[in-house]
Amino acid sequence: MPRSDRILMGPGPCNPYPEVQEALIRPMLGHLDPEFVALLDETCERLRQVFRTINPLTLPISGTGSAGMEAAFVNVVRPGDAVVVGVNGVFGERMSEVAARCGAEVVRVEAEWGSPIEPEALLAAHPSPAVIAVVHAETSTGVRNDIEPLAAGKRDALLLVDCVTSLGGIPVEIDAWGVDLAYSGTQKCLGVPPGLSPLTVSERARERIVERPSSWYLDLNLIGRYTGPASGPRVYHHTAPITMVYALHAGLGAVLEEGLEDSFHRHAECGRLLQEGLQHRGMRLFAAEGHRLPELTTVWVPDGVDEAKVRRLLLERHGIEIGGGLGAYAGKVWRIGLMGHTARPRNVALFLAALDETLELDD
Amino acid sequence: MPRSDRILMGPGPCNPYPEVQEALIRPMLGHLDPEFVALLDETCERLRQVFRTINPLTLPISGTGSAGMEAAFVNVVRPGDAVVVGVNGVFGERMSEVAARCGAEVVRVEAEWGSPIEPEALLAAHPSPAVIAVVHAETSTGVRNDIEPLAAGKRDALLLVDCVTSLGGIPVEIDAWGVDLAYSGTQKCLGVPPGLSPLTVSERARERIVERPSSWYLDLNLIGRYTGPASGPRVYHHTAPITMVYALHAGLGAVLEEGLEDSFHRHAECGRLLQEGLQHRGMRLFAAEGHRLPELTTVWVPDGVDEAKVRRLLLERHGIEIGGGLGAYAGKVWRIGLMGHTARPRNVALFLAALDETLELDD
Repeated sequence: MPRSDRILMGPGPCNPYPEVQEALIRPMLGHLDPEFVALLDETCERLRQVFRTINPLTLPISGTGSAGMEAAFVNVVRPGDAVVVGVNGVFGERMSEVAARCGAEVVRVEAEWGSPIEPEALLAAHPSPAVIAVVHAETSTGVRNDIEPLAAGKRDALLLVDCVTSLGGIPVEIDAWGVDLAYSGTQKCLGVPPGLSPLTVSERARERIVERPSSWYLDLNLIGRYTGPASGPRVYHHTAPITMVYALHAGLGAVLEEGLEDSFHRHAECGRLLQEGLQHRGMRLFAAEGHRLPELTTVWVPDGVDEAKVRRLLLERHGIEIGGGLGAYAGKVWRIGLMGHTARPRNVALFLAALDETLELDD
Repeated sequence: MPRSDRILMGPGPCNPYPEVQEALIRPMLGHLDPEFVALLDETCERLRQVFRTINPLTLPISGTGSAGMEAAFVNVVRPGDAVVVGVNGVFGERMSEVAARCGAEVVRVEAEWGSPIEPEALLAAHPSPAVIAVVHAETSTGVRNDIEPLAAGKRDALLLVDCVTSLGGIPVEIDAWGVDLAYSGTQKCLGVPPGLSPLTVSERARERIVERPSSWYLDLNLIGRYTGPASGPRVYHHTAPITMVYALHAGLGAVLEEGLEDSFHRHAECGRLLQEGLQHRGMRLFAAEGHRLPELTTVWVPDGVDEAKVRRLLLERHGIEIGGGLGAYAGKVWRIGLMGHTARPRNVALFLAALDETLELDD
């Protein structure tokens, strides 16, 4: 039975906030219990605050971040729709694949891994796309793609944004940026275990929801009758994952009690400390300067270092998890997360000390 | 913040086993941590024991029971396939809808709510169906549909069975009964919170898995590369819901430690005590005799009783949750669950006493 107490500095999950651990063992309630329904309503309201939106249709999807991605596409994409997707990492690739399975004509706008997508390129890629989709914080590369410039030029398209690794860690402004659909994950900068995917849908997007999407489980027409916004009594769709909703409610509470701006500042400070520390040691950062995420740092593995061995030593000796590279960068970069409750200066200090020790051991 | 301590005697969720509550707060691990991967492997092995199967492709889907249903259909149904579905309640209806959204030609075999589906009718409904689908334990009616007679006559069809409310509570024999695809939920007779859907797929069904199903999130080709059965290194698909896997692992541990047969006996005894107690009070059971589920009892509301008021009083005065009827039986029947950790004689005794008190109050 595993009881190892890790410092989770990989690309997610992070360590949950203490308030979240406590919430997990509250007595179970039924999904139609008035007390649970009130908690769910409050959770959706907290999600609106964190997404900075007044969208009535804002709720946790009962699956992980990828379920939120699929829900976002499957509810608004019709066969033959042109869907522009920014691809500069694994999650842009995943968006392309999910859109293609919805029958979309996918128009890819690519950038090198490590570089951001040019907003102008996304806007110029197709004369009348149904959807323009982009990842805000690419978990595979540590790159931030700019969202704010897109709204002015989106015209009739819906703007669909992956906020899995950004929400709670860096500014996300759904309404101010004109984002129509956005989803996130619980296990990143919200400090909650993986298992739910916060989703928000603008009224503009809601009017275009497909009547009978290919997925019954992710059908927002039906889910919305349970979660609200209510227009009549709640109608059961599927049994809500009660425990995980407790956890999300508590994690959002922790974030909002700290204050969103203070949470951003804490993530920014930790990311800066880590990135300066790595550069001070002569290491090179992977993501383009000016577009580096504080909550996820990618760094080139120094020449001659056995990167898998370093990760193994960090895990075995110090209980510190960091991530390896994906795709063509497997074995070449590390991905070091500072998200949610893990984003603390003491974890940066510990990690740098442990890395120094490990690299010496590895010599 | 809700902390009410309910006795959950509705149609699920039930009260989790104490071992499950304890597991929920174990320290978080990453989804690629060797300790977590070992726990996941052991969870899949425990699922095989509970499903009574040797199917290599046996795993928890990262969503609730309805996600398991969708995964079962979307991975084997191709547009135009004939799919025979037994419909005698809400979950048979749901199966029809999910199959239709996969593009199937759905052939419905109906029985009245409260009566079981005739196995012969399912087998005779179409000359060469791709899939024959039926719900083992109908949560909307408390009826058991017989599965065992279907295998001998299924010929080339895949036999797909909803075991959401049966697994752990009454005998389920995936291999002995020749079931090709089965899914369950965690919050019923496994005594775990809602959030995961155990799924098992026979080798025969696995050979027919669609190459690129419409759902990326539920694509078993991709999920299987992470969960196994392994043929090479594990490949990340989506971040596993770590906490819920801890909970499922612990719940399966509790069930297997008690012993499956003993768990069935306990559910059977509790169901018998409740059903005798209700009949002793002059109340009529809804489900057909010989096909009554011990873990979910449906009973007609006595004439002149305000059923919603009774449920409210039970909840407010005693913290006991029971369920109301669905569809045409809303307001006419109660659904009383005795599942997992809730299936204890003391809960039957308490419920009957509380019901007596409440009906007198209601007079």
